Amino acid sequence: YQHYTQEVLAQAHLPADTLDGHSVAVGANMEMAEEVGSILSYGAESIGLYRTEFLYVTRRDFPGEEELLENFKTVVTRMEGRPVTIRTLDLGGDKFASHMEGSLTAENNPALGLRAIRFCLKEKDLFKAQLRAILRASALGRVRIMFPLISGVGELLEAKEVLEEVEAELEQKGQEYDKNLEVGIMVEVPSAVTVADMLAKHVDYFSIGTNDLIQYSLAIDRINEHVAHLYQPLHPAVLRMIQQVVESGHAVGIPVAMCGEMAGDQRVVPLLLGLGLDYLSVNALAVPRVKQVVRLTSKETWRQLAKEALSFPTAAQVREFINGKLAKHIPELFSELG
Amino acid sequence: YQHYTQEVLAQAHLPADTLDGHSVAVGANMEMAEEVGSILSYGAESIGLYRTEFLYVTRRDFPGEEELLENFKTVVTRMEGRPVTIRTLDLGGDKFASHMEGSLTAENNPALGLRAIRFCLKEKDLFKAQLRAILRASALGRVRIMFPLISGVGELLEAKEVLEEVEAELEQKGQEYDKNLEVGIMVEVPSAVTVADMLAKHVDYFSIGTNDLIQYSLAIDRINEHVAHLYQPLHPAVLRMIQQVVESGHAVGIPVAMCGEMAGDQRVVPLLLGLGLDYLSVNALAVPRVKQVVRLTSKETWRQLAKEALSFPTAAQVREFINGKLAKHIPELFSELG
Ligand SMILES: [Mg+2]
Ligand SMILES: [Mg+2]
Repeated sequence: YQHYTQEVLAQAHLPADTLDGHSVAVGANMEMAEEVGSILSYGAESIGLYRTEFLYVTRRDFPGEEELLENFKTVVTRMEGRPVTIRTLDLGGDKFASHMEGSLTAENNPALGLRAIRFCLKEKDLFKAQLRAILRASALGRVRIMFPLISGVGELLEAKEVLEEVEAELEQKGQEYDKNLEVGIMVEVPSAVTVADMLAKHVDYFSIGTNDLIQYSLAIDRINEHVAHLYQPLHPAVLRMIQQVVESGHAVGIPVAMCGEMAGDQRVVPLLLGLGLDYLSVNALAVPRVKQVVRLTSKETWRQLAKEALSFPTAAQVREFINGKLAKHIPELFSELG
Repeated sequence: YQHYTQEVLAQAHLPADTLDGHSVAVGANMEMAEEVGSILSYGAESIGLYRTEFLYVTRRDFPGEEELLENFKTVVTRMEGRPVTIRTLDLGGDKFASHMEGSLTAENNPALGLRAIRFCLKEKDLFKAQLRAILRASALGRVRIMFPLISGVGELLEAKEVLEEVEAELEQKGQEYDKNLEVGIMVEVPSAVTVADMLAKHVDYFSIGTNDLIQYSLAIDRINEHVAHLYQPLHPAVLRMIQQVVESGHAVGIPVAMCGEMAGDQRVVPLLLGLGLDYLSVNALAVPRVKQVVRLTSKETWRQLAKEALSFPTAAQVREFINGKLAKHIPELFSELG
């Protein structure tokens, strides 16, 4: 086993191209700027999700623009031109800044409460400081902005309006930023899936956040031990939602990524590629294994697998079907599942 | 205004037929057996949702089969052959029996926790006692069973299996029940919408529960003052979901009802009929007004309205469009909205 792991690591820097010649972007999710080194050593070609909450939750006041800028600059510079997707603040829900605790942890269902983009659109100064820092860092490399928890077009346009205000301000001050900076959203609220075609017209990419999407779509808090067994990434509804987001994105020519934990599950990667995802962003440790599966994969084969997988009415049946196919097509990785 | 209200009440017992001759079933939602009298006086032709939680939350122990049976018998008998839709226990979430409080109110996101059908499938004795009482009451009138919070086919089949066990038990004991009793589900979890076509094959009807469906689809707890303004019944995603459920039901010939608060909003009723709903179940007080709107409505006109309404990207635009149409088509009711 150790030998096997060493082999996977040794190949971590090979490109993730499928057997039939499709390139799949494999990036890493990141919490702290200090992780850039290890992320690169694991073969990640980009940062698909830089969660910025850590900069906020570990202190009593909020970080200012300059402090955020220093942090983003470090990341962007160390990534040497590789894409860095910075998600705007996703506080609330289960993540709180210490000084928010008094007011907001009193929410009865924090997951359905004032969090992420909702919180930012209410606290505009905080939001704008972060956007200014992200934009200014974009002058130094390839930065993408990602808005979390967007539920529909109205909310997206509101967020983009704030971004435009900030751009105008920077313009006026003569501060540089990347004028072609890509703006995307996390698709993680069920309503965003339903209107993905409408949202696609206003963004440069989608990134499916499966953790929240599954939680809301199945109405299951996976942290809750009473119902955790009902949190099913392979639920037929989840697969259909992924398919719908991919189709809505591709219909207007934008790429569709996934940055939830589901994308790091080696057994699920072939199905995800079959569903048409262009980009997988996973925990750094999972990058080598995900790239390995991609290299052993033919996109056309898995397109057929995805089509069949979508026909089953229960998650258990989907899993059984997939495991059978994996054991047959990639026995060197999945023989034990047969 | 008082005169107007009296006029509406006087017409409460007229059938709810549209101008172009479609009959729309208008029923009432009910919490307690004592409400049957007033429900009938308001012109309800059926009970579209009998919430059974009241029998559980007001006491320390759980009611037994015989006690439940007495209650259901009373309702069914008083309804004199009119349909009575009994929803199986929907405890958990924001509704707790007092003796559950110790364990379950500790949930961090109770709306995403152990509630409704999940709770019943875990507490099978409790579930079976209720099912036995419902089945036995069905011998005395027209009873329908409705399972809440179904998320997919696996869960539905599990619930139906318990029902079949109970039927076999009654059979064995020689106890009577309606062998043609209709079994349906509330469609109120986003995943159920996504796989509505799969679910439709296993039920006799759908009933859309908009309160929870909107809550989960938009990830908004409407009780939470911080985000209540983001709870939007006319969100384009919600309208599309309603449309999808209706189409999935009608494709296999089963009727589709709505029993959420949205169905009782007089301004929204024409849109709902345009989306193809067959049955609206609302608070008793709203029955006369809903029937009145139906009578002033031509289903074909509203089909066109629904089609156009579905094209707007934001809830605000949908509302503005609908208000304009209502002021034009039913000025006697909605002139003030123009
Ligand atoms: Mg999320
Ligand atoms: Mg409900």
